[in-house]
Amino acid sequence: MPSTPRQLEPVPHTAVTFTDTFWAPRIERNRTVTIPHIYRQLQETGRIAAFDLNFERKLPARIVEIFSDSDVAKWLEAACLSLATHPDPQLAAQVEAVVDKIIQAQAPDGYLNTHFTAADPAMRWKNLRDWHEMYCMGHMMEAAVAHAAATGSTRLLDALCRTADHIDATFGREEGKRRGYCGHPEIELALIKLYHATQNPRYLELANYFMEERGTQPHYYDQEARERGDDPAKYWAKNYEYCQAHLPLRQQTKVVGHAVRAMYLLCAAADLAHEKKDASWLDTCDRLWQNLVNRRMYLTGGIGPAYHNEGFTEDYDLPDETAYAESCATIGLMMWAERLLQFDGDRRFADVIERGLYNGFLSSISFKGDAFFYENPLASKGGHHRQAFFDCPCCPPNISRVLASLGSYFYSSSQGGVWVHQFAGSQAKLRVDDFPVNLAVETQYPWNGLVKIRVELEDPRTFTLHLRLPGWCKNWSLKVNDEVVDLKPQANGYLELSRRWQNGDLVRYDMEMHVVTTWAHPAVSALRGRIALQRGPLVYCLEETDQPGLDLGRIEVNTRTGGFSDAGVEMRTDLLEGVVVLNGSGTLTPDDAWGDDLYRTHRTDSQPVKLLAVPYYAWDNRATGQMRVWLRESCS
Amino acid sequence: MPSTPRQLEPVPHTAVTFTDTFWAPRIERNRTVTIPHIYRQLQETGRIAAFDLNFERKLPARIVEIFSDSDVAKWLEAACLSLATHPDPQLAAQVEAVVDKIIQAQAPDGYLNTHFTAADPAMRWKNLRDWHEMYCMGHMMEAAVAHAAATGSTRLLDALCRTADHIDATFGREEGKRRGYCGHPEIELALIKLYHATQNPRYLELANYFMEERGTQPHYYDQEARERGDDPAKYWAKNYEYCQAHLPLRQQTKVVGHAVRAMYLLCAAADLAHEKKDASWLDTCDRLWQNLVNRRMYLTGGIGPAYHNEGFTEDYDLPDETAYAESCATIGLMMWAERLLQFDGDRRFADVIERGLYNGFLSSISFKGDAFFYENPLASKGGHHRQAFFDCPCCPPNISRVLASLGSYFYSSSQGGVWVHQFAGSQAKLRVDDFPVNLAVETQYPWNGLVKIRVELEDPRTFTLHLRLPGWCKNWSLKVNDEVVDLKPQANGYLELSRRWQNGDLVRYDMEMHVVTTWAHPAVSALRGRIALQRGPLVYCLEETDQPGLDLGRIEVNTRTGGFSDAGVEMRTDLLEGVVVLNGSGTLTPDDAWGDDLYRTHRTDSQPVKLLAVPYYAWDNRATGQMRVWLRESCS
Repeated sequence: MPSTPRQLEPVPHTAVTFTDTFWAPRIERNRTVTIPHIYRQLQETGRIAAFDLNFERKLPARIVEIFSDSDVAKWLEAACLSLATHPDPQLAAQVEAVVDKIIQAQAPDGYLNTHFTAADPAMRWKNLRDWHEMYCMGHMMEAAVAHAAATGSTRLLDALCRTADHIDATFGREEGKRRGYCGHPEIELALIKLYHATQNPRYLELANYFMEERGTQPHYYDQEARERGDDPAKYWAKNYEYCQAHLPLRQQTKVVGHAVRAMYLLCAAADLAHEKKDASWLDTCDRLWQNLVNRRMYLTGGIGPAYHNEGFTEDYDLPDETAYAESCATIGLMMWAERLLQFDGDRRFADVIERGLYNGFLSSISFKGDAFFYENPLASKGGHHRQAFFDCPCCPPNISRVLASLGSYFYSSSQGGVWVHQFAGSQAKLRVDDFPVNLAVETQYPWNGLVKIRVELEDPRTFTLHLRLPGWCKNWSLKVNDEVVDLKPQANGYLELSRRWQNGDLVRYDMEMHVVTTWAHPAVSALRGRIALQRGPLVYCLEETDQPGLDLGRIEVNTRTGGFSDAGVEMRTDLLEGVVVLNGSGTLTPDDAWGDDLYRTHRTDSQPVKLLAVPYYAWDNRATGQMRVWLRESCS
Repeated sequence: MPSTPRQLEPVPHTAVTFTDTFWAPRIERNRTVTIPHIYRQLQETGRIAAFDLNFERKLPARIVEIFSDSDVAKWLEAACLSLATHPDPQLAAQVEAVVDKIIQAQAPDGYLNTHFTAADPAMRWKNLRDWHEMYCMGHMMEAAVAHAAATGSTRLLDALCRTADHIDATFGREEGKRRGYCGHPEIELALIKLYHATQNPRYLELANYFMEERGTQPHYYDQEARERGDDPAKYWAKNYEYCQAHLPLRQQTKVVGHAVRAMYLLCAAADLAHEKKDASWLDTCDRLWQNLVNRRMYLTGGIGPAYHNEGFTEDYDLPDETAYAESCATIGLMMWAERLLQFDGDRRFADVIERGLYNGFLSSISFKGDAFFYENPLASKGGHHRQAFFDCPCCPPNISRVLASLGSYFYSSSQGGVWVHQFAGSQAKLRVDDFPVNLAVETQYPWNGLVKIRVELEDPRTFTLHLRLPGWCKNWSLKVNDEVVDLKPQANGYLELSRRWQNGDLVRYDMEMHVVTTWAHPAVSALRGRIALQRGPLVYCLEETDQPGLDLGRIEVNTRTGGFSDAGVEMRTDLLEGVVVLNGSGTLTPDDAWGDDLYRTHRTDSQPVKLLAVPYYAWDNRATGQMRVWLRESCS
């Protein structure tokens, strides 16, 4: 179990420059294609103009109209995160124009929500359970923090402090305040960011209040529903598990309800564990983490199988074709894992970040950068495709802000050490204690596991280089300046390379990557008798376009006599911007080999078929068709 | 393909007396338990009192209220069929009282429907598509034919002739008649029965009109909808496939829509092929039969996988746990197959009758005789149970009338021959041409395949005994008076035993029964990687009560190294009124052998488990729990 306070210090994304051919072009495309694309969509759908407050709206509003400010906020955050690493005058001008509008739309008392201000002022703060006001303001606070960091101007940050002050004056346990909290968590982690940006401890305390108050009795959502004249029993989601408010979080034993809400809430729990040195929050995180990753997580890092609540159902309920696995939920999982990783550098958190990043997260955006998955199923009959935008477009700007700040997932520092969690060709400007350490990383990751790290520093220094040994890696070698270093991984799964480093020391870390067949726990009824293929951090899939004319559901793979192995690994520069594909074999019984009988009492010989598997993240970027991660295991 | 006219002559159920321990007790229980039980349910739900015509009803009525007469009609038919083989004064008195009520409820013009007469007379004949009026009258005609046969009184038959005359005066192609036909087929086969009972050819012609008119353009259902002020495009079922009226039947290439409707319609097509010597109806039957049994039939003889239309979907769509497989649909399939069988004694029809009879049909009634399945799924998580009655109770009296007339499925006669289609200890009074031939059959069927037939006749005669060689039987032996007879089956799958028979000649027909593993066509996605167990005519299943504590979905059966074989066949007189069970073995990976990991890259050894399979028809007669026909095939 992680311990408080945290031993590692996150490294800002601005300290990391990607130089590789995998991530660097994606980050650049995020800036040149995705951020402008989302801006246009926000304009075209009236979300930016909404800050002019001169719209009329049919009431009651649709819920997506109520929280449309959050889409603008996430775009603004993505844009500012991008500006912090890459100057872009046109984008900077757009940002300032949007900031102008936001500031002008703020009410004199600090309240900020275009819908309630312009269309429905009487309903302000009347339904915290459903109406996302603090969720929107929280995202705006995150944007403001990113804006201040990128521009040095605190004009938006100051505005959002007024918002936070207004919230603080309205909600809390003190006399005259309402004991509310937002149905969609987000404000909690945002207030902690605001606290760090401003050093104002009231924001930390306000976040702490929201976390402590949530799920207590008498229940605030019952009370506010009655005040609106609604029957709390008629809540559409049936119970408060949907918003993780059925019990105080510390009493919850399983991850439940809406998956994005659960992740954002747990991010704040991890933050508070550190800020408040409160191990009980970490106990809660650890318990829910284990439930999540051992019972409720797709192989791709997708979470939340169900459409009806965009969230969790039961342990081991992981259907592949109907998987909801919202893009934002995987992002939320990565955010939570990144926070937990800082406590004691336990690789299980970095492993899950990697699983999400290279699979369920990366699948959510098209190669062109202008289309997105909201849902990330693990199989498709051919009808699931990325879209330019959504009626509820929470995912596109969320995807964009992760790409714009990607470096923050890769490194940490600690007392006397630096940490390499993820691997990519990059330049990282780190600090160990008070001296600068630069790491120049060269690697073809994720295509192979060889990582070369050149340590750059002004003077020789003694410190520890912590290298993550991924959970998928069974054999590796490590050299410093061509001398083999024989190390066992620590209990946390990292290799600790402690020495007096000289400028130019070269670490050669070679993680063997093999094609591995994966089985799911036998309690996962949807995946019984099925296998999946992984290599390194990548989950693979079959796409119909690579096996034309074959029904992917009828393909069987014999993992003993055929299937996939390292022999079939091939770098294909002509495919999908360059990917390692897996050539393999399976069997299939065609209709003509079987004949007309619907049932038979003898086996029918199946025929061999050649198969080509591609990384899951890359699917649906070519001819449309079926896709399948979990293949049937052959018995013949 | 069968040819017209038919070569075989059906044998009435009254000619067959069951003497065995399998069917005879069930037929007796039908008389002593089921028929009285259904009568009480009809009384308690007001369905019999409805014929007093003094009820009020909220309009528009629920559809099940509109056709409740049919439930009474089917009970009456079952009761009369039973009276024809077993005198029962109390039942006879109930029958006459109900007949009194029916006759009194008839309108002066012959129209007969309690709902429209008592509650909604203005809507008579206004919606043939949905409102089941002729369906109800058809069932009443079948009851009247059975009543006349059982009692010799034609008072109900005469009344129903007035009904038929009224329909004939209302619908048809002649000037002044409406070109309608009923949305739920039934009247067609009923009119043909009425024709046989009365020799009035107008009833045959009326049935013929309905069959020829159905599905023609301009469409009657469009027209009548507009006349009601409804938009035909807003038909809830979306198109007329639901009631097999999208095209003239001869142009249909797949069995579609509501499964019971399809079967009843096809019964009439088979009847007309014979009556009209019209081979085109047989072509149609043959085409749709092949589509049905090769693409759309459960292993149990269940048909119609879907809840939403109580019917058919797509080829090879045969999910096990969600199978609708309505009891009435399997009955309809047996009725259709029985008609087709008479054309040239092709065993494929008798094979399907057997499949339905011993599996999907017999599962539909409890051992006690007072509870019924409406749906007959092939797997259950534990929540599917028989019920005493239903809001739409079409199945219970349908099941009862099959049991009351069961003998009609077992034998036929033909020029110079008698036919044994199904096997049960029984006395059959048959005729070959003009002389009587009695068959006294002894067998333990379905528990083993040894069938002894003693031929009883007044004088020696030359004729052919046609014995069905079931499709499941690969090896058999045949002796007459202990002399081996070496015969090959004919093209129709029957053994033809032609000789000059002496009174007392003993045929000893021994069909080897083995435990066989069954696979479904690879296009059946729901059953890929799964196997089922059959022995003789019986499909087997696992019930949770026989493998306590095991999750049936996690059990795997290795068909090469373990599984089930003849070695595990055991007669268990202590179980389920005496059944042959199959002892076998499988494997299962328990949670504790797997551990916490959700995904693994190596196999985990599974543990052997002993398994006990019981006949599918017998399930849900003991402790409740999971049930499963299709087991996972092991790859380890």
